[in-house]
Amino acid sequence: MQATLPSTTFTDYLSVAASVAEQLAADAVNQDRSGELPTAEVEALKKSGLLLLPIPRQYGGAGATWPQVYQAVQALANAQGSVGQLYANHVSLVAAVEAIGRPGQAEHYYRLTAQHNLFWANAINGRDSRLKIAPAPEGGFRVNGVKSFGTGLAVADLSIIGAMPPEGDLPLVFVLPQDRPGWAYNHDWDNIGQRRTASGSYRFDNVVVYGDELIGPPPVPESAFPTLAFLVSQMGKVFTYLGIAEGALKAARRYTVTESRPWLFSGVESASQDPYILHQYGELWAQLQAAIALSDQTAEQIQLGWQKKTALTFEERGEIAVSLAAAKALAIAAGLAITNQIFDGMGARATASRHGFDRYWRDLRTFSLHDPVAYKFRDVGNYVLNGEYPVPSQYS
Amino acid sequence: MQATLPSTTFTDYLSVAASVAEQLAADAVNQDRSGELPTAEVEALKKSGLLLLPIPRQYGGAGATWPQVYQAVQALANAQGSVGQLYANHVSLVAAVEAIGRPGQAEHYYRLTAQHNLFWANAINGRDSRLKIAPAPEGGFRVNGVKSFGTGLAVADLSIIGAMPPEGDLPLVFVLPQDRPGWAYNHDWDNIGQRRTASGSYRFDNVVVYGDELIGPPPVPESAFPTLAFLVSQMGKVFTYLGIAEGALKAARRYTVTESRPWLFSGVESASQDPYILHQYGELWAQLQAAIALSDQTAEQIQLGWQKKTALTFEERGEIAVSLAAAKALAIAAGLAITNQIFDGMGARATASRHGFDRYWRDLRTFSLHDPVAYKFRDVGNYVLNGEYPVPSQYS
Amino acid sequence: MQATLPSTTFTDYLSVAASVAEQLAADAVNQDRSGELPTAEVEALKKSGLLLLPIPRQYGGAGATWPQVYQAVQALANAQGSVGQLYANHVSLVAAVEAIGRPGQAEHYYRLTAQHNLFWANAINGRDSRLKIAPAPEGGFRVNGVKSFGTGLAVADLSIIGAMPPEGDLPLVFVLPQDRPGWAYNHDWDNIGQRRTASGSYRFDNVVVYGDELIGPPPVPESAFPTLAFLVSQMGKVFTYLGIAEGALKAARRYTVTESRPWLFSGVESASQDPYILHQYGELWAQLQAAIALSDQTAEQIQLGWQKKTALTFEERGEIAVSLAAAKALAIAAGLAITNQIFDGMGARATASRHGFDRYWRDLRTFSLHDPVAYKFRDVGNYVLNGEYPVPSQYS
Amino acid sequence: MQATLPSTTFTDYLSVAASVAEQLAADAVNQDRSGELPTAEVEALKKSGLLLLPIPRQYGGAGATWPQVYQAVQALANAQGSVGQLYANHVSLVAAVEAIGRPGQAEHYYRLTAQHNLFWANAINGRDSRLKIAPAPEGGFRVNGVKSFGTGLAVADLSIIGAMPPEGDLPLVFVLPQDRPGWAYNHDWDNIGQRRTASGSYRFDNVVVYGDELIGPPPVPESAFPTLAFLVSQMGKVFTYLGIAEGALKAARRYTVTESRPWLFSGVESASQDPYILHQYGELWAQLQAAIALSDQTAEQIQLGWQKKTALTFEERGEIAVSLAAAKALAIAAGLAITNQIFDGMGARATASRHGFDRYWRDLRTFSLHDPVAYKFRDVGNYVLNGEYPVPSQYS
Repeated sequence: MQATLPSTTFTDYLSVAASVAEQLAADAVNQDRSGELPTAEVEALKKSGLLLLPIPRQYGGAGATWPQVYQAVQALANAQGSVGQLYANHVSLVAAVEAIGRPGQAEHYYRLTAQHNLFWANAINGRDSRLKIAPAPEGGFRVNGVKSFGTGLAVADLSIIGAMPPEGDLPLVFVLPQDRPGWAYNHDWDNIGQRRTASGSYRFDNVVVYGDELIGPPPVPESAFPTLAFLVSQMGKVFTYLGIAEGALKAARRYTVTESRPWLFSGVESASQDPYILHQYGELWAQLQAAIALSDQTAEQIQLGWQKKTALTFEERGEIAVSLAAAKALAIAAGLAITNQIFDGMGARATASRHGFDRYWRDLRTFSLHDPVAYKFRDVGNYVLNGEYPVPSQYS
Repeated sequence: MQATLPSTTFTDYLSVAASVAEQLAADAVNQDRSGELPTAEVEALKKSGLLLLPIPRQYGGAGATWPQVYQAVQALANAQGSVGQLYANHVSLVAAVEAIGRPGQAEHYYRLTAQHNLFWANAINGRDSRLKIAPAPEGGFRVNGVKSFGTGLAVADLSIIGAMPPEGDLPLVFVLPQDRPGWAYNHDWDNIGQRRTASGSYRFDNVVVYGDELIGPPPVPESAFPTLAFLVSQMGKVFTYLGIAEGALKAARRYTVTESRPWLFSGVESASQDPYILHQYGELWAQLQAAIALSDQTAEQIQLGWQKKTALTFEERGEIAVSLAAAKALAIAAGLAITNQIFDGMGARATASRHGFDRYWRDLRTFSLHDPVAYKFRDVGNYVLNGEYPVPSQYS
Repeated sequence: MQATLPSTTFTDYLSVAASVAEQLAADAVNQDRSGELPTAEVEALKKSGLLLLPIPRQYGGAGATWPQVYQAVQALANAQGSVGQLYANHVSLVAAVEAIGRPGQAEHYYRLTAQHNLFWANAINGRDSRLKIAPAPEGGFRVNGVKSFGTGLAVADLSIIGAMPPEGDLPLVFVLPQDRPGWAYNHDWDNIGQRRTASGSYRFDNVVVYGDELIGPPPVPESAFPTLAFLVSQMGKVFTYLGIAEGALKAARRYTVTESRPWLFSGVESASQDPYILHQYGELWAQLQAAIALSDQTAEQIQLGWQKKTALTFEERGEIAVSLAAAKALAIAAGLAITNQIFDGMGARATASRHGFDRYWRDLRTFSLHDPVAYKFRDVGNYVLNGEYPVPSQYS
Repeated sequence: MQATLPSTTFTDYLSVAASVAEQLAADAVNQDRSGELPTAEVEALKKSGLLLLPIPRQYGGAGATWPQVYQAVQALANAQGSVGQLYANHVSLVAAVEAIGRPGQAEHYYRLTAQHNLFWANAINGRDSRLKIAPAPEGGFRVNGVKSFGTGLAVADLSIIGAMPPEGDLPLVFVLPQDRPGWAYNHDWDNIGQRRTASGSYRFDNVVVYGDELIGPPPVPESAFPTLAFLVSQMGKVFTYLGIAEGALKAARRYTVTESRPWLFSGVESASQDPYILHQYGELWAQLQAAIALSDQTAEQIQLGWQKKTALTFEERGEIAVSLAAAKALAIAAGLAITNQIFDGMGARATASRHGFDRYWRDLRTFSLHDPVAYKFRDVGNYVLNGEYPVPSQYS
């Protein structure tokens, strides 16, 4: 499907994202329940033109900055955590090729993506080493085995996959087109949250990978730029958390104002005048705004770092990583507070399944376990006390 | 079904409750998902003899004290919040007749319940006044209308129902036997938690109620004893919360010890040695024990109050109500902390739906909305600052 | 004393503020203990040139923006809460004349302040109406009575005072020069924190006030601009809180790294490697950064509002007031967490009085009671739920 | 001074403790400020008869149980943290001889204490090994060096001191009578809290210790009973924390009810009707009651363990240690919440130094650093997850 970029100004993209979110939200409760493949979501993203947001203008994209892209992530996640995660992954992956690829690879894939309006997904999860890649006698490589947590592969045009080579303990990373034969989804993603991400396991049976599909090594491997890609990706998760939390708060607000009844002993005429409900909404909103403000600030740092390309130093990357760790931990804290406490402001009848108010908690609780938040605070503390930066990894 | 009381010592009843809980836990994930009528649960309760726990020995019961009965509630709720709530309601209702009934009614229903091993439920919810009761030309009464939140009526042998008379603004309360014609369940309880409680709405079409089925008025209506029944009932909720939380913590512990992997950067060899996971389990356990200790203390107060019967003063009742308000609020706080944070100690893979670890949160979150916790703290504060007791009501 | 403005770039002012803070911090423990008049602090401020920071360039000032001015407040409050408060008041008062004064008054006082490097203080406290102002037979006015919470009057060149006229319930506000006869400080500020602010009561005995010393009425009284002055002032408090918290965290960090011993059972060789100490510093730092980020954002909003002058709408003012309420509440929360928990990371020996680590808590706890934080959250909630803005007042 | 035991029933002792507390509270603000030796406190304790509370009846004491003794600790700490700590130490030390002494030592010191109404203190702090004990050529021992954190030695009749022998890494423990020549207080306890405990350093210059003044070894050293003494002592700290917190809450309540003004925008006529103040008092009170309930329960466990004497198993001791760790951590959490938040319910004027409301926080903050609370939660978690008990030590 050809992307029809709705316009070239960012303001427009943000309203486009909001409109896609509104459209998806209408059916979100059912989609969450069924937990089927997110084909409708990917289609909506394609139609919207948002897939091209992070692609530089010279390659046919919209050339949005990271703060702009992340605002779109947040807006989409208002509707559903799943579409937030899928889109956040897409934008990170499209750009990751620029950070970790060989010269020319970024241009190639940027252009290809823009031309054909392609959707990206990935299965990199470094904690699962069951997928193997080995040189093939006929040239190129063959891939065999299984990979778990392959978020969205089943609906992606292009996927970035990590697999272990015969020797060494670092994975090789390659791009896999959807129509390549020999791989399949096990349809085994039935989790309590982020149910529309197809994040189950995928099996590979002698799948061919061509040499130019291997991504990297980057031209200046000793630069901090390649591992900035991990932070770009982590930050996408943070804005997904913020979006889920914001979506929950908005939905709850609507319910409290229109459906909730004042408590018997409150002495007020509507739930929205109850002193404790007012206080709680205020506290939750404030906590969310603070997490957003810190995240926005970190997104600006990422943008500055991204613009430095291979000139980015490890100190600069470290500063970003510390801010990101703090922003991530606080976004999760705000999100858990919100997705739990909104019920107090809505009342018992809001637990009817048809409202689906629990999906915000299930989505956030699931996705926020990507890596343990306690270690985020430890990393920040190690910086504050000892001046040390987090070791660059998929998680920091 | 005849109850075969397994033994006459309390220790036995507690192990019986634990064994019923273990049996129900085995299928709890599926039962939660289906959300069908809790017939299996009620059957298990009948077989166990636990229905007779609160009935005085002279009427054929086990004569357990309230602290003992509540321990059984807590043990059952380890398995599933629903069965905890159903059982907690049963024990409160069986005893409520003694507090609010006319002379002779308690004896009658105690004996009847013990002889036939009957299960009780109720639809009293004072915030829904759509159910009407009126004198019938032929004598007795007729009941018409709808009642929501009728927890467990569909599976109860006897139910206590509140309905509005033609005049006055206080409901009349009557006992409804299961086989009385003219009423039906709307099968409309599809909520995010406590899914096996059949807490939907019930419709009544000209249902006959005989004069002796009206409960009350109590012989000393100006005593504090009748409204002690509300506290007995509220306390059953508290121990259900504690049981849900305890069940969650135990289930999570099992998973962490047997399934969780140590975090990449933890430097330890098992998740159960991780300093942050240790700390978190410690904090959650401590918080739960404190809530249990306060609740146990309140249960002792209830027992002392119960033994005073109509000699119970409003000051004494007020002291219990204050303790109960504090215990309830802290039990909910501990429970929400536990049902949220267990995931941090288990990791992302624990969100697979087959484990059903989210049901603890869904159950607690749903049931804890029975009445707003903010007003519990306000009531306590009003006592601390102004020496005033909570106004006796269904909620305090 | 003539101000020798050290330079015209903001970067310089910030380093000037840091250097004043460093100088004051050296004696802060003793100064806190004695609680005497803050003459040394005011002298240091005068020498530094910082008093002229908010004055527009055309009147001889540095023309800094509000975000810049607030950063100086924060830097100063690192040393001591008192000097932060005194300076925050000064900058708010100098500018307030522009918002609430008659045409020409701002220019007059800007110029006067710049020329003579004057320090401002105030006694406006609307909750104390014991100070009276009345027309004098000889022309002008006479002021009599007592005013409490007159922060810094004793050491100020010019003070803004509120007093009640014979009729009406709104105070008149006037400028009082230090050398005007008839008023005196009662030297009765002996509070647990902010001890160097001379915030006690002041008595006035037939003090002359000339007509042109009355401030206001503003040229467009129905504009939102005059009451923006309250928000400018409130925001000064917020950055004082942030500065106190930041100062506490920095001081504690230094102690933990250099003095604290590892815990017996920690298994690590230094306190700064303890997993729980690392986590706690990380959590506190993160919380502080989020509060700063939200406050910085609000400071930008204030700047935009300030630039609109009398064109500022009540909606725009309302948006600022909501952000400010959230920022204030979170700054206090972060500050209380920090000033309490730093001790856990330092250990028992850090409670020696010579370190003065408790002064951070005493300062923050005292100053944060200016107006109740619960109502800040309520105000935010009222906006979130009902779309209503806080009623403009001295407090919002 | 001879103790005149006021009566033999526990109820009396509790009212005696309350009356001593009331008497001490009257001058507590001044005493805290001066930070002089607690001679008045020790004198009041002697007059009251409370020093004999834990001594078995057969030796002339009141034979109170540990729960009873701890209630007296809590009541005393209502007045001032210092007297709570001094008394808690006394009762632990008097009894410790029974746990760690040789046969006959307990009887000797129980009788001596009862006969002469003696007050005990200690300097055991295992983290300071600068005090040395060595056999003397003339027989017995000589003690030289310095010992820090020697709480109350300066005012004690008998003190238990730990000192390092020439060989081995375990200290020897001996009883030091006040009039023994050669030791002196350095008068160097000037800390932010617990200021009336004389907890500074003590120097020893060739002090004679006789062989029978060495305490221990216990008759069954491999029993868990000797190390139960540590738990008895830790629990004394816990009840001191609870007492400080309770004292703070009571004092604040009095102020709020009599002095605080309603907030301008509260719409209520008194501070004690403010919805947020009511809520906060309720929350703080509830949290305190839960910590007390858990502590009371642990005190009962200690009593049962104490009665088992040398038959106490390490499993039984371990169970107590786990409960104690939980109780301690929650008592501190409740106490910090209370000593911080009471100010919100009182308002800015309550920060006047003459009220001394900050002393509750300073006392609790200081004393709660005795050993790090994070490791208490870790210990509890290690029990919950791994079934392991805390390693017996001075701290667990």
